[in-house]
Amino acid sequence: MRVDGTAYRSIWRSGDGVTVVDQTRLPHAFTTFDIVTEAAAVDAIRRMVVRGAPLIGVTGAYGLAFALRDDASDAALDAAYGRLLASRPTAVNLRWALDRMLRAVTAVAERARHETALSLADALAEEDVATNEAIATNGVALVRAALERKGGAGPVNILTHCNTGWIACVDWGTALGVIYKAHDEGLPVHVYVDETRPRNQGASLTTWELAAHGVPHTLVADNAGGHLMQEGSVDLVLVGADRVAANGDACNKIGTYLKALAAADNGVPFYVAAPRSTLDFNCPNGDAIPIEEREGDEFRKVHGLDERGTPAALQQLPAAEAVANPAFDVTPARLVTGIITERGVCAASAEGLRALYPETA
Amino acid sequence: MRVDGTAYRSIWRSGDGVTVVDQTRLPHAFTTFDIVTEAAAVDAIRRMVVRGAPLIGVTGAYGLAFALRDDASDAALDAAYGRLLASRPTAVNLRWALDRMLRAVTAVAERARHETALSLADALAEEDVATNEAIATNGVALVRAALERKGGAGPVNILTHCNTGWIACVDWGTALGVIYKAHDEGLPVHVYVDETRPRNQGASLTTWELAAHGVPHTLVADNAGGHLMQEGSVDLVLVGADRVAANGDACNKIGTYLKALAAADNGVPFYVAAPRSTLDFNCPNGDAIPIEEREGDEFRKVHGLDERGTPAALQQLPAAEAVANPAFDVTPARLVTGIITERGVCAASAEGLRALYPETA
Repeated sequence: MRVDGTAYRSIWRSGDGVTVVDQTRLPHAFTTFDIVTEAAAVDAIRRMVVRGAPLIGVTGAYGLAFALRDDASDAALDAAYGRLLASRPTAVNLRWALDRMLRAVTAVAERARHETALSLADALAEEDVATNEAIATNGVALVRAALERKGGAGPVNILTHCNTGWIACVDWGTALGVIYKAHDEGLPVHVYVDETRPRNQGASLTTWELAAHGVPHTLVADNAGGHLMQEGSVDLVLVGADRVAANGDACNKIGTYLKALAAADNGVPFYVAAPRSTLDFNCPNGDAIPIEEREGDEFRKVHGLDERGTPAALQQLPAAEAVANPAFDVTPARLVTGIITERGVCAASAEGLRALYPETA
Repeated sequence: MRVDGTAYRSIWRSGDGVTVVDQTRLPHAFTTFDIVTEAAAVDAIRRMVVRGAPLIGVTGAYGLAFALRDDASDAALDAAYGRLLASRPTAVNLRWALDRMLRAVTAVAERARHETALSLADALAEEDVATNEAIATNGVALVRAALERKGGAGPVNILTHCNTGWIACVDWGTALGVIYKAHDEGLPVHVYVDETRPRNQGASLTTWELAAHGVPHTLVADNAGGHLMQEGSVDLVLVGADRVAANGDACNKIGTYLKALAAADNGVPFYVAAPRSTLDFNCPNGDAIPIEEREGDEFRKVHGLDERGTPAALQQLPAAEAVANPAFDVTPARLVTGIITERGVCAASAEGLRALYPETA
């Protein structure tokens, strides 16, 4: 996607390494970070210079390739795999990418391992772009339908939660990818961006992405979406997912369920954009999805720029204040109008998902 | 209510004036502010040293009394009334209190005006305490019922939104008043406190109040309430209201509607605590309630203590970021289990409200 008119990906090959957008500096500064060694990849993942499941996976894959540049022995491979995996232990995509790398690299001779690994990391990146562009293409039809329901008088007002954009992936994103594609095809869209407490991914990342690409948008409190729907200001809700169960229950950033309830109460279509890698056909329903509890300091500290423009943090709450911080919730399939995948849009049901992915039966 | 074991009100007579809790310093410091002149009352209201509709009204009333100490002429009275009213133009309770003061004071001779005004301001304060204590008493029955539904095994987990506590009133508060009364009567209660973005009244005021009085509680993101109800962690939702329409539709802090939807979806009782002064029998339903839009800087700036413990602000968003900031939403009566008033608990309907307030028919 674009940043002030220039096309970017979140990660790209440069010299002997890759360059990534430094997400710790957003939204205040757009800077890049070079990764030429495995150690730099570990550092970038750990410090959240890169974030978003697909991007973490691809960054880890490049990190493994860099580790093999000087020493491609089995021992070096195993050690690098372990260090990279430990850089973000709960990231499912990271393990998935590293496992794929490990299998491919182990299968070839030591002298071919570095090149094999680099090629596969490139392929993983391209795969992610292709998948997300397919999701975007399939989702645009829904934006077009919303515009037609309004008699062609735009803009189509889309509410979204958290960050599902290109900087969380390699390019496009999932729910935001649909919005970029619609915008690029000339459909009039306007996005209501949920702040997404407590980590503020909407306020600090989604608004930045949309502004940089030139998509009209407005930031709102997580509390506001229900009222906006009541007054008819939302035509469509588009969110991503961290995991979709076999029956269509969708686990996503905490607060998504509340927006789904409001959408159902006001007759607003509510769609979940998710690639195949997010669909968990082994998980029967949302009850089987464990909800991660995150640290309370996400509430106790607030971040921003001080008067000199230097990043700083302030203590917002007394350190002793008790906080509960569930990171995700589950939106029951009954509240999901449909799921947008790279193969098409389906009903949020076992039948709908199986019809698109018959090979999982 | 208590602060570390000592009983406090939010405003009390001291010497020739009144003393209030300085709410701009909470939750980081508990300090007081003396108001002996009308000018100090205007300043306290304008800088939000005092906030909360009932407390603003009482503070304004004392301010008018102080203005009459040296000059009780009609001209001085009118001028003071105008300055006090302008200190917070949208506060309905302020106008209501000042109008009551004006009528009473105008009816007596100049030499009696100061004393008359002081007495009436005292009476308004006592009235507020009595009303809220009655609400608390009526609401405790609901907490007791929730405990019985759990077979007597506490705690009763109560979710609340925004700040409806004693520092917004003179004592007790509305929804929080119910919680204090239940706690003081020995019922085991635990409160989930919504952060209440964008002004954080829950995070900075409600948690402080509950901690100071010794009520067990946990701060959560506004996003978390739905998930908490899904997992059975909430037994009761208690909120306040800024205005209740004649049909029981309840206008309250933005985000309340989302919690009401989640409560209905999960079979959790959802009650609105509101005194007579909040019931608007002239307003047919929620559609007739205008929703105030507040300034976007509530999102752009964040506040807290810096490393030296000094209050400071940081810029969280680029100044150009577009923000929509509706301050309230309307919860339809169909989602409200009941309304807790000083006269009792009634159904959220025209019939329910009329039965408690037959004189309004």
